[in-house]
Amino acid sequence: MVKKIGILNGGGDVQPINAVIASIVKSGSKRGFEFIGFERSWEGVLNPMLYRTLDQKSVRGISHVGGTILGTVNRGRFSAKKGAGEVNKIPDDVLQEAKANLEKVGVEALIVIGGDGTLSGALQLAELGVKIVGVPKTIDNDLDSTDKTFGFSTAVDIVTEALDRLHTTATSHDRVIFVEVMGRNTGWIAVNSGLAGGADMILIPEIPFDYNKIVEFLRKRKETGYRASVVVVAEGAAPKKGLVTSMKVGDTFEVKLGGISNTIIQKIEELAPGEFELRNTILGHIQRGGSPNAEDRILAKEYGVAAMDAVERGDFGMMVSLKGDQIVTVPIAEAVKKLKLVTTDSLTVQTAKKIGVFFGD
Amino acid sequence: MVKKIGILNGGGDVQPINAVIASIVKSGSKRGFEFIGFERSWEGVLNPMLYRTLDQKSVRGISHVGGTILGTVNRGRFSAKKGAGEVNKIPDDVLQEAKANLEKVGVEALIVIGGDGTLSGALQLAELGVKIVGVPKTIDNDLDSTDKTFGFSTAVDIVTEALDRLHTTATSHDRVIFVEVMGRNTGWIAVNSGLAGGADMILIPEIPFDYNKIVEFLRKRKETGYRASVVVVAEGAAPKKGLVTSMKVGDTFEVKLGGISNTIIQKIEELAPGEFELRNTILGHIQRGGSPNAEDRILAKEYGVAAMDAVERGDFGMMVSLKGDQIVTVPIAEAVKKLKLVTTDSLTVQTAKKIGVFFGD
Amino acid sequence: MVKKIGILNGGGDVQPINAVIASIVKSGSKRGFEFIGFERSWEGVLNPMLYRTLDQKSVRGISHVGGTILGTVNRGRFSAKKGAGEVNKIPDDVLQEAKANLEKVGVEALIVIGGDGTLSGALQLAELGVKIVGVPKTIDNDLDSTDKTFGFSTAVDIVTEALDRLHTTATSHDRVIFVEVMGRNTGWIAVNSGLAGGADMILIPEIPFDYNKIVEFLRKRKETGYRASVVVVAEGAAPKKGLVTSMKVGDTFEVKLGGISNTIIQKIEELAPGEFELRNTILGHIQRGGSPNAEDRILAKEYGVAAMDAVERGDFGMMVSLKGDQIVTVPIAEAVKKLKLVTTDSLTVQTAKKIGVFFGD
Amino acid sequence: MVKKIGILNGGGDVQPINAVIASIVKSGSKRGFEFIGFERSWEGVLNPMLYRTLDQKSVRGISHVGGTILGTVNRGRFSAKKGAGEVNKIPDDVLQEAKANLEKVGVEALIVIGGDGTLSGALQLAELGVKIVGVPKTIDNDLDSTDKTFGFSTAVDIVTEALDRLHTTATSHDRVIFVEVMGRNTGWIAVNSGLAGGADMILIPEIPFDYNKIVEFLRKRKETGYRASVVVVAEGAAPKKGLVTSMKVGDTFEVKLGGISNTIIQKIEELAPGEFELRNTILGHIQRGGSPNAEDRILAKEYGVAAMDAVERGDFGMMVSLKGDQIVTVPIAEAVKKLKLVTTDSLTVQTAKKIGVFFGD
Repeated sequence: MVKKIGILNGGGDVQPINAVIASIVKSGSKRGFEFIGFERSWEGVLNPMLYRTLDQKSVRGISHVGGTILGTVNRGRFSAKKGAGEVNKIPDDVLQEAKANLEKVGVEALIVIGGDGTLSGALQLAELGVKIVGVPKTIDNDLDSTDKTFGFSTAVDIVTEALDRLHTTATSHDRVIFVEVMGRNTGWIAVNSGLAGGADMILIPEIPFDYNKIVEFLRKRKETGYRASVVVVAEGAAPKKGLVTSMKVGDTFEVKLGGISNTIIQKIEELAPGEFELRNTILGHIQRGGSPNAEDRILAKEYGVAAMDAVERGDFGMMVSLKGDQIVTVPIAEAVKKLKLVTTDSLTVQTAKKIGVFFGD
Repeated sequence: MVKKIGILNGGGDVQPINAVIASIVKSGSKRGFEFIGFERSWEGVLNPMLYRTLDQKSVRGISHVGGTILGTVNRGRFSAKKGAGEVNKIPDDVLQEAKANLEKVGVEALIVIGGDGTLSGALQLAELGVKIVGVPKTIDNDLDSTDKTFGFSTAVDIVTEALDRLHTTATSHDRVIFVEVMGRNTGWIAVNSGLAGGADMILIPEIPFDYNKIVEFLRKRKETGYRASVVVVAEGAAPKKGLVTSMKVGDTFEVKLGGISNTIIQKIEELAPGEFELRNTILGHIQRGGSPNAEDRILAKEYGVAAMDAVERGDFGMMVSLKGDQIVTVPIAEAVKKLKLVTTDSLTVQTAKKIGVFFGD
Repeated sequence: MVKKIGILNGGGDVQPINAVIASIVKSGSKRGFEFIGFERSWEGVLNPMLYRTLDQKSVRGISHVGGTILGTVNRGRFSAKKGAGEVNKIPDDVLQEAKANLEKVGVEALIVIGGDGTLSGALQLAELGVKIVGVPKTIDNDLDSTDKTFGFSTAVDIVTEALDRLHTTATSHDRVIFVEVMGRNTGWIAVNSGLAGGADMILIPEIPFDYNKIVEFLRKRKETGYRASVVVVAEGAAPKKGLVTSMKVGDTFEVKLGGISNTIIQKIEELAPGEFELRNTILGHIQRGGSPNAEDRILAKEYGVAAMDAVERGDFGMMVSLKGDQIVTVPIAEAVKKLKLVTTDSLTVQTAKKIGVFFGD
Repeated sequence: MVKKIGILNGGGDVQPINAVIASIVKSGSKRGFEFIGFERSWEGVLNPMLYRTLDQKSVRGISHVGGTILGTVNRGRFSAKKGAGEVNKIPDDVLQEAKANLEKVGVEALIVIGGDGTLSGALQLAELGVKIVGVPKTIDNDLDSTDKTFGFSTAVDIVTEALDRLHTTATSHDRVIFVEVMGRNTGWIAVNSGLAGGADMILIPEIPFDYNKIVEFLRKRKETGYRASVVVVAEGAAPKKGLVTSMKVGDTFEVKLGGISNTIIQKIEELAPGEFELRNTILGHIQRGGSPNAEDRILAKEYGVAAMDAVERGDFGMMVSLKGDQIVTVPIAEAVKKLKLVTTDSLTVQTAKKIGVFFGD
């Protein structure tokens, strides 16, 4: 029976990682497992100094704290990702070194919490025989293989709270306020926070927008007495060139430096000089950090326990995945392949459209 | 085609009712419908003075505001509910009067937002030929016919935030702090907030508890160095007499005055005098009010638009209901019959148990 | 020069204690001091096992966390307080034992964070020659010797947020909702949160109320169309028997078991049966815990650094105290003598009265 | 006796303006006054269509809502401010037109809520005999003539919450995260939120910074094991050229487009290429909007009632001003002259320095 388990997280932080770590260790300790936490992602596997024992005491009181007690890095020697979305082969010697180090410290199975980059790397290690269970981590909620990822709900809360604040400013000043939110490839955060926060327009990567129609929409609102508007823009939103209907992980939209929201504002000012008082806010990193909300803590704990269950069952090469009200396992190889896109016929988009939200198309 | 729609909400308030009302009116106005809002539940139908026209302007800026602009009452002449859970026949003359008044003001269909009491009343009116679409409303999330009801997520957030606060007090003082939360018949709020908020023990109606085992659990924690504990108790939790496996709407557990949490504390003090520093907090009405969270606003808007869609389709006698990622309609008659109970093999309870949460049994 | 400093906190927890501890240790370490933290208040001084070294690392990241890393107890062998407010002499042998233990571990000065009970004890130790600096700690903000105490502002925020939530429920249901808040002897939390949270009536210990006038006020509101009311009641509020104009620390009002708010509701129901739909919420311990707000963190850090400064200057037997925009020191003997009462001519009460808030008199 | 009062707010919105308006109207209505609200600042005085009657009903339930029900503009025909800080003479014909319109609608006194720009305009109107009472409004808390302005405390809360979130990201990723906050001329928001939110470095206009010393500080932290840092930068912070010791209203520091925080990051990257993982967040407009916190609501209500009191006393040409625990009146002419700067010997800065916060100098 597997006895010593390694835990590692890679890529950008999301709020509930500590809750995942804590629930793995708590539920595993009760069943007699021991744990090693690798610090700073794969660096902790490659560098013999960067790991530590995790027990019930070391994970006490961390579940509601954002970030990760193990630290993380976006890139490194082990990186399976060169540029945005570009999935690469990790050099053989690095893979072998990682495998050897895991054996040296006696780790019999590794739980890897990460996005497509980190999990693709894990997969290459799995092919060398390392026993791996994956836990999906993306704040964008855009993994096709799972219903929901942790961090997403908290990010939507943070954006919604910002929208509540910006609404009172927009209304007081009769301004059109743009809010740029996370979502390089998909518009889940934009659509959900936009619907929750009463946005008048939502621009997302999946629905390319038309500058002229945006101006037309704002003009029509003004004519009917709505001088203030709040617009949520996913960072990956882009003007129309043809509709995107599917994406592979690794595909990405081209994003202008300085934020697409700035570009849109400049273009509106060009098309309708002086007509609107336009302002911009780029929320940035505050969307990823801080204490996770209730839903995300629950989800993270469910994922953590499910990962431990998978290890116990010997369900390796698999990723835990929420399907309906159950957590199942799916092959990592399959799981990291496809993004889940916002579709125009989804319940959320349809609801937004029916109450008058404009998607720029 | 139906042109003038009535809107009515009954029973206890939950945070996102205004979001439902607003989305009905917004999405319906765009399709040419007109709206009348009946105030103070059925009182507004029986009393010709208590209604008003609702248009886009009157629902502007209300979706993030808790409570209901229409007001509500728990009982009244139209009440289909005498005591807790006891569903009754509404007198014929009252039903006829309601029907006549609806005709007098030209309401061709009525959207009723309510729990089992309000919807049972609506059903009796529907039997007289009134065209009704129901929207489920229960903060307890305990309706078997729908996956999730709005208000629940916000209530869980509020309790979780309270638990975060109480944890620091419990730990600083080495106390056992009990928190009594809503849930007369079911433990959904208790289980979800307890798991999110790091409770050590969760007591719910569905899992009758054993006083001796509770004392045993607290003693064992103390022996292993955990002198502080946080316990979440659903108001309907009760000591063991035999496991409950199913409930009809209308069944209820007997609840002691003053709160079950007080009873439990007294009993522990009896069984283990002076061993624990016990404290109690009954959260009460703060769980129902204030601004709804992002998820609840989205859900409420989806329900509101779906109710309007059902009216347009002529889907009467039906209640809108979330199933997976779609909102469908189910017959009201069927929908109000059965409670959804927390089961011990659910993902949430299993997760909680595996990380060491005790359910008192 | 004093080199090793002891830190101790006693009595009930408030949110920003950790921020005080951290700022003492951070600012003192930079000047070459060393620190010992005594756990569980004076128990840590009397019991040689209950202390630990505190350094920059051990106080890292704790300033925004509620409660106290040292733990606390309300009573114990060293207790200078028998009943509420009753200040007593600590037995000589206990004082001598404490002094001896402090010498044994090499503590040359002791910073004591506490309310009147804890500081009165500290004073008796100071009379034996122990070098002591006091830091005032009372969530009620009712110490005459200092302008503001930390924890108060966060408590007011928590109550105000609860009032925001209860307002929507009160309005939706046309209810009179009572909220009982902390304040056994003084009404600072009640007055400030009541004014901030839009209460219609505020009842405090300093202004004894008249049951008949309360009923009269509620009736008048109802007649003028305000059927909903929100009432904030300090736990120490009491019916009129004559106005209180001054109090010594140690004096206290008699409080009925079960909460004065319950008593008031019963009395109103007696005087005006069935006229009002009355509800009650007792906020309890959630007012003391959780993350402190920005103002309280700042104040706590200022107090902590000022205490360290006082130690360095050799300013013993003194308590740090906020006066205007400076922190000064006052003799502990003097500081713990007198409560600061809410007066009817204060800015806050006058403002509340002028916008129509009723104080029950 | 003055009977009809005008209310007007100008310049940027802050969270508690509605609370000021509501408390003026509530406290004045009780004394027999009537109110006219001018919309969109002075536009409402110059344009006969842009005003409306305000009574108790129209200000009900607005005190906790951010923004202003009257709307506002930053500039306009009446503008006394051409560029940032540049105070100008309003044309005589505009002043006369405003005066005439006020007389036409029967306004006998005008309460003006505004910053130095709006109040300077009001002053020029006062010189023509219009009876004016000013209420100071600046989120920056930088008016020398008053202890505290409303909006500031809420802004500090918002920034502190953002810092809490960014800390977990900074620590998880070993990043140096810059947060640019409001404060064009003064660093009050930066210093207070920085101290509350545990910033490691705070850069403000009053203390010009040295790029080399910043790099040195970050290097030293890294060497001693603190790889993550959080830096708060006021938007008006600037590199050293000589210390600023006093400012007139109207003076301003030159600010680079794109944010000074971006400039600093580029410069650090130049001086220490690749040494630090630097990130930036510009919080922007979310600092001004949304629901005000408890302290700001109280302060706003105190100011509103005090302004009404001043009108009743006939205290014209004066501005209400918090001094200690009282609100007094000061001549507007004097009040708008001088900014209140952060000084290095203030309690807050001294506290921050003593616990190790670096100010870049």
